[in-house]
Amino acid sequence: MLSVLVTGTNRGLGRGLVGELLNAPTVGIVIATVRNVEVAKELMRIDSPKLHVITCEVTDENSVAAAVKKASQIVGGKGLDILINNACIKHRVPLNGDVTKAMAMEQLEVNTVGPLLMATRFHGLLKRAAELNGSAQIINISSASGSLEQALRVDWGPPSLYSISKAALNMLTRKLALEWKADKIRATAFTPGWVRTDERSANADQSVEEASAKLIKMILSLTEDNNGEFYGPTGNKIPW
Amino acid sequence: MLSVLVTGTNRGLGRGLVGELLNAPTVGIVIATVRNVEVAKELMRIDSPKLHVITCEVTDENSVAAAVKKASQIVGGKGLDILINNACIKHRVPLNGDVTKAMAMEQLEVNTVGPLLMATRFHGLLKRAAELNGSAQIINISSASGSLEQALRVDWGPPSLYSISKAALNMLTRKLALEWKADKIRATAFTPGWVRTDERSANADQSVEEASAKLIKMILSLTEDNNGEFYGPTGNKIPW
Ligand SMILES: NC(=O)c1ccc[n+]([C@@H]2O[C@H](COP(=O)([O-])OP(=O)(O)OC[C@H]3O[C@@H](n4cnc5c(N)ncnc54)[C@H](OP(=O)(O)O)[C@@H]3O)[C@@H](O)[C@H]2O)c1
Ligand SMILES: NC(=O)c1ccc[n+]([C@@H]2O[C@H](COP(=O)([O-])OP(=O)(O)OC[C@H]3O[C@@H](n4cnc5c(N)ncnc54)[C@H](OP(=O)(O)O)[C@@H]3O)[C@@H](O)[C@H]2O)c1
Repeated sequence: MLSVLVTGTNRGLGRGLVGELLNAPTVGIVIATVRNVEVAKELMRIDSPKLHVITCEVTDENSVAAAVKKASQIVGGKGLDILINNACIKHRVPLNGDVTKAMAMEQLEVNTVGPLLMATRFHGLLKRAAELNGSAQIINISSASGSLEQALRVDWGPPSLYSISKAALNMLTRKLALEWKADKIRATAFTPGWVRTDERSANADQSVEEASAKLIKMILSLTEDNNGEFYGPTGNKIPW
Repeated sequence: MLSVLVTGTNRGLGRGLVGELLNAPTVGIVIATVRNVEVAKELMRIDSPKLHVITCEVTDENSVAAAVKKASQIVGGKGLDILINNACIKHRVPLNGDVTKAMAMEQLEVNTVGPLLMATRFHGLLKRAAELNGSAQIINISSASGSLEQALRVDWGPPSLYSISKAALNMLTRKLALEWKADKIRATAFTPGWVRTDERSANADQSVEEASAKLIKMILSLTEDNNGEFYGPTGNKIPW
């Protein structure tokens, strides 16, 4: 039975991924992290022995360290099989005088450095699982907006800061795949496609449930061949 | 006669680019920025009416704003034709528990957010030059280490943080190209190739002078076709 941790599960896709994972017969432990357990009412109402809701602010080294400690107690020596970096923010300002340094830094802090901290701090637990089961897996939830090849598409336009953070996240995925190959820890990036997570995405073609189901199906069937790659919602390769 | 501003010119490639620009007959004004004018002794010894050495810490919004003001006085209403973002740092730690949040943030702050601040704050001067001369140009000095396609090369290995910052810089280049097309401000990324800038690169195939000469020749002959693209030292396209 696999153990899986997902960040940013209070709402949106993260919440959907948790729902799918709880239904997956091969998954035994689901660790759902939220910024604030008090606020995560919907998640806390779920009655499942598989589910463990813990706090994690992915940009805070102390919070991440505390999450590692709690996760370690939950998995009890078996390590963590899958880490899903899903939490994100999206600044929508165009590249003009309104972009402050703080805004650009925060965009990178949450979407790029957060996953980096999660991966590096959870390295020990992932390595332990890889030793026991042959491999462990990091999933970085990226976006087609992070594709450099597609970055000149006029119809996608801004938010450019978000695109910058996702291109950086894709490079993190590649470098984890390279550096941790010897530990049998793999890293793969996915874009869920466009999903109805809030008012802004009301016209998206997928519900949270549909997108989550597709992603979890793929995530649970990854092999060595998928290490360091970037896929869309139907398993299609996304160009860098 | 063109005006060109280069960041990080106290040493290394930046210093070399300034030397080449001073020799270029079509360049009338060279604004060389350094973090500390007191330290930039070599640069200050150069006796050329074209050269203006000013202070700029690219991660500091106030310092960048002050540099815009000084550059504006220097160019006297004619705008800035070319902005070259060259300044950088390189953290060499592998992706393990030794990577601190501060280290990752600083890597992105200097190599990605610095160029973003320079571009957005110099937008007015670049736009002015584009209105007068048909186009203006941003050059982001990137690295082949920022290429996602080449990121799994074992021989290049770490420093991964540096690669992440350069992939992000490449996305900035693409997005500036897209967002500022209407203003006729172009953005292009270059890698100089491997250059003997310090002890660590003592075995590199190019001297600072050779690399600078190649780059400046290309930079001074860019057209609309090169907007948003990424080139190597011989004008070869680098894959994203
Ligand atoms: N929705 C789409 O169409 C779409 C398309 C492409 C890619 N994606 C990707 O899919 C992922 C999920 O997107 P979404 O639409 O579900 O986003 P969302 O609805 O905005 O939810 C983001 C989640 O991340 C959490 N979060 C934000 N900052 C955090 C931090 N510093 N530490 C911990 N958690 C933090 C939020 O917590 P709070 O609830 O506490 O605010 C929230 O639960 C993202 O990586 C996004 O880039 C989505
Ligand atoms: N050398 C190579 O083989 C190579 C290969 C590929 C790409 N590149 C790229 O070429 C560019 C130049 O590299 P290099 O080898 O010449 O680097 P370098 O020798 O390390 O010089 C970097 C310069 O950037 C300045 N700088 C650092 N942080 C700054 C900040 N926050 N604000 C303003 N200036 C700052 C430094 O100032 P101080 O002098 O005050 O420290 C220094 O002058 C970089 O973008 C690099 O990524 C170089």
